[in-house]
Amino acid sequence: MATPRPELLSLNTATVREKWNLAQMIEGCARRGIRGISPWRDKLDALGVNQAARMIRAHDLTVTGLCRGGMFTAVDGAGRDAAIQDNLKAIDDAATIGAQCLVLVAGGLPAGSKDIAGAREQVRDGIAAILPAAKAAMVPLAIEPLHPMYAADRACVNTLQQALDLCDALGDGVGVALDVYHVWWDPKLRVQIARAGEEKRLFAYHICDWLVPTTDLLLDRGMMGDGVIDLPKIRGWVEAAGYAGFHEVEIFSAGNWWKRDPDEVLEVIKQRHAECT
Amino acid sequence: MATPRPELLSLNTATVREKWNLAQMIEGCARRGIRGISPWRDKLDALGVNQAARMIRAHDLTVTGLCRGGMFTAVDGAGRDAAIQDNLKAIDDAATIGAQCLVLVAGGLPAGSKDIAGAREQVRDGIAAILPAAKAAMVPLAIEPLHPMYAADRACVNTLQQALDLCDALGDGVGVALDVYHVWWDPKLRVQIARAGEEKRLFAYHICDWLVPTTDLLLDRGMMGDGVIDLPKIRGWVEAAGYAGFHEVEIFSAGNWWKRDPDEVLEVIKQRHAECT
Repeated sequence: MATPRPELLSLNTATVREKWNLAQMIEGCARRGIRGISPWRDKLDALGVNQAARMIRAHDLTVTGLCRGGMFTAVDGAGRDAAIQDNLKAIDDAATIGAQCLVLVAGGLPAGSKDIAGAREQVRDGIAAILPAAKAAMVPLAIEPLHPMYAADRACVNTLQQALDLCDALGDGVGVALDVYHVWWDPKLRVQIARAGEEKRLFAYHICDWLVPTTDLLLDRGMMGDGVIDLPKIRGWVEAAGYAGFHEVEIFSAGNWWKRDPDEVLEVIKQRHAECT
Repeated sequence: MATPRPELLSLNTATVREKWNLAQMIEGCARRGIRGISPWRDKLDALGVNQAARMIRAHDLTVTGLCRGGMFTAVDGAGRDAAIQDNLKAIDDAATIGAQCLVLVAGGLPAGSKDIAGAREQVRDGIAAILPAAKAAMVPLAIEPLHPMYAADRACVNTLQQALDLCDALGDGVGVALDVYHVWWDPKLRVQIARAGEEKRLFAYHICDWLVPTTDLLLDRGMMGDGVIDLPKIRGWVEAAGYAGFHEVEIFSAGNWWKRDPDEVLEVIKQRHAECT
């Protein structure tokens, strides 16, 4: 298949979060010819949302997402209300920086709970609660199914099919952020990506790689090409589903990439995007 | 719901593998009133299959499974043939010790491969190749879906639905070993357990717990009650599906349970089985 278009490359800022602030990330992307960026909210708050929006516009970058909203599950109503307020703030910020979507990481089991079905209901209710505000702000909500190994502590939405079922229950304005790291193993991946396309739910596409061995559940993601994910195949499915958006590189890597010079990391990303995805 | 019957408790010997040989495990189960046992093949070979069979019969233990066959995936035909030969040996051993099933762990991606669909075809073909021998020996084959975090390096069968689809493709003589650790997160778990019951495919039920946090992908499983899995709920689904067999405790725990006195571990297992499952 054709190599991916370099102008579709986007940097999820988690990839260089240890060494750069958001201003450096924006300038780094511009300097290196990376045309998309997806900030995390801690970095966004540190720079200031309005200042960030100005800088992003000045460099003509596309904001492929804001990471992240969600975390709807809580032990009580006060906790869930706080989550909703936080998500409303995230929607405002996403609108201010012109993000193509607000990425939602569902939230795991509330502390002390073993009721994953109940947690999933809380997630549905939480998204339903913020959806009107998201629509009013014209910020698409992108549910990100997370790998099942995060079901307890991070996200109880764990497959693309489950995320799309949730979208169907919620209606317009909600879709999915598809991160290969979380879904590459799924026997239904191809079918569900096609479904996401038919239902116009594919809002974002994130890439990295699954390392063998993986030494840490959270912080040992690999650079594209260093692992076992067939990235060209999955891109083919995504493109066949009608997705023509950015390819956002999001790598949590405490032991390797986070330790390196971010300018070097960006160069490797560009090379690997061209050669391995 | 009713507490589980203590006579249905079985010890998967991996739980005490660091301190005991199989003779000690058999005697330990008998001494502590645990009526089922599921040996691993390394320990079985060390004791000798016939000697193990004699000891197990002498203590009137039920062999709830033999761990494990499988590992069908390989880079070439010679590797796959070797795997089949090894599985045929495992079938013989399972018959000799009177195991209720031979547990099959599929195998992951062959070295250097990114073709998970191809690996899954290898697994199907491998099981098909050994199935006649298993039927002749009256050894049911129990495919164990493993958690998706093991898809690359251990097993490319990762959900109960996928395992049952594989059973349907293979016909009689094949079922599933359901380990809560691997499947507790699955939004379709209840439905697929019911399906497994209808299709008479539920050959074994393994229990332990998912710890939060989990510090190691392989060797940080929890004792029942120490994690977030709703074990009574899942047992209820399993029983509703018609399963009346043993509850086999399999805990890989390098940092905790493997370090303890196995007699103590067995006592904790009995208590937790009664109180938490």
